[in-house]
Amino acid sequence: MTDTITPDQLGVGMRLSVHPHCDDYVAVILGALEDAQHAGAGEGLEVETDEVSTYVAARGEHPEQRLVQYAAALVAAAHRRSDGGHVVAHVLLSRGCPGEATCEPTAAQLPRATAIELPGTGIRAAAQWSLYPLLDGGPDDAHMDHIEAAIKEAQSRGTAAEPAHYATLLTGDLGDVLATAADAWARVGQEVAHVVTHLTVSVGSPSSGSHDVEG
Amino acid sequence: MTDTITPDQLGVGMRLSVHPHCDDYVAVILGALEDAQHAGAGEGLEVETDEVSTYVAARGEHPEQRLVQYAAALVAAAHRRSDGGHVVAHVLLSRGCPGEATCEPTAAQLPRATAIELPGTGIRAAAQWSLYPLLDGGPDDAHMDHIEAAIKEAQSRGTAAEPAHYATLLTGDLGDVLATAADAWARVGQEVAHVVTHLTVSVGSPSSGSHDVEG
Repeated sequence: MTDTITPDQLGVGMRLSVHPHCDDYVAVILGALEDAQHAGAGEGLEVETDEVSTYVAARGEHPEQRLVQYAAALVAAAHRRSDGGHVVAHVLLSRGCPGEATCEPTAAQLPRATAIELPGTGIRAAAQWSLYPLLDGGPDDAHMDHIEAAIKEAQSRGTAAEPAHYATLLTGDLGDVLATAADAWARVGQEVAHVVTHLTVSVGSPSSGSHDVEG
Repeated sequence: MTDTITPDQLGVGMRLSVHPHCDDYVAVILGALEDAQHAGAGEGLEVETDEVSTYVAARGEHPEQRLVQYAAALVAAAHRRSDGGHVVAHVLLSRGCPGEATCEPTAAQLPRATAIELPGTGIRAAAQWSLYPLLDGGPDDAHMDHIEAAIKEAQSRGTAAEPAHYATLLTGDLGDVLATAADAWARVGQEVAHVVTHLTVSVGSPSSGSHDVEG
């Protein structure tokens, strides 16, 4: 019998950067980080901001869900604090590589992922999303199969998913968009020991031609 | 004898988004796109902007060099047009996958890459950089070996490269930072048919604690 590795042993985390397109971006970002903490979205997470981005690690139960919940809270707060202005976030979600220098493939059984759902935010988002299963040998090395299955799943979820070069366009409520990408990433992570996904998420864009779902 | 595939057949391109952190970001972005065209950086490139990012494809000679030259010109122009303000760019460089639906691994010999060098911009940049060799089977499937070799190369180039979770921090002149990442990506592309790299590049950050090299 093969042991099942825990998510903590596997290493589940995120890097994200939030970009308010306004002169008082420093106040907006610091305020949004506070709002996300006050809303409890950062509970049990390790949050560390450096010059380029914020690193967030989740330990314990449902790490994937808690990471994107935090990302949704932060982007929604930045959007509100900039009076519904244009905010872009770049999100990197990683499973299976605790750090650059210590990534070792595991032979243990990978943990199951539970379906990820986020509450609606009322904020319309558009995202370009890429998924990278980083495989090491073996007969199942077909990274495009995993990617194509993930795109089909995103389409069936109702998050509009359109192909674009190097990415898939997801549109819908900010919560749905983030949940769609994170769910696909966690699902592939049941089969592939090291999987990373990147999202560039845009809200309040003047070129979107559409407005927030509510408010 | 195995045929050598051309870069055009392979598909070499980029997605980038530029985020000026100021109220007149629309004028800054449109002006920077114009500046890059006027400087000739966009010559021979296919440039297509959508709601989330700008897709750039390079055909012909030295596609990798021309793509990052364009990225450097665009970020430098946005920085200048926002009076040396804070600008973040997200850059995705891809080799070996012309589009989401049509990515087929090739059995042909991969094209050689020539060393990438960019002129100094005088702008200090910090970037978080990730490299994804997307391998399909074969005895050489060791994605971390390629990544570790790329990081060593970056360190020997003089671009300070420090490990961080899920990324490597590159600091130095904007031109060097972009050239370091693109060079590593093109080198791995000599051995791996499908390779993608992501960079979050920050210039003019108030938290950088340091200023532009010149001007």
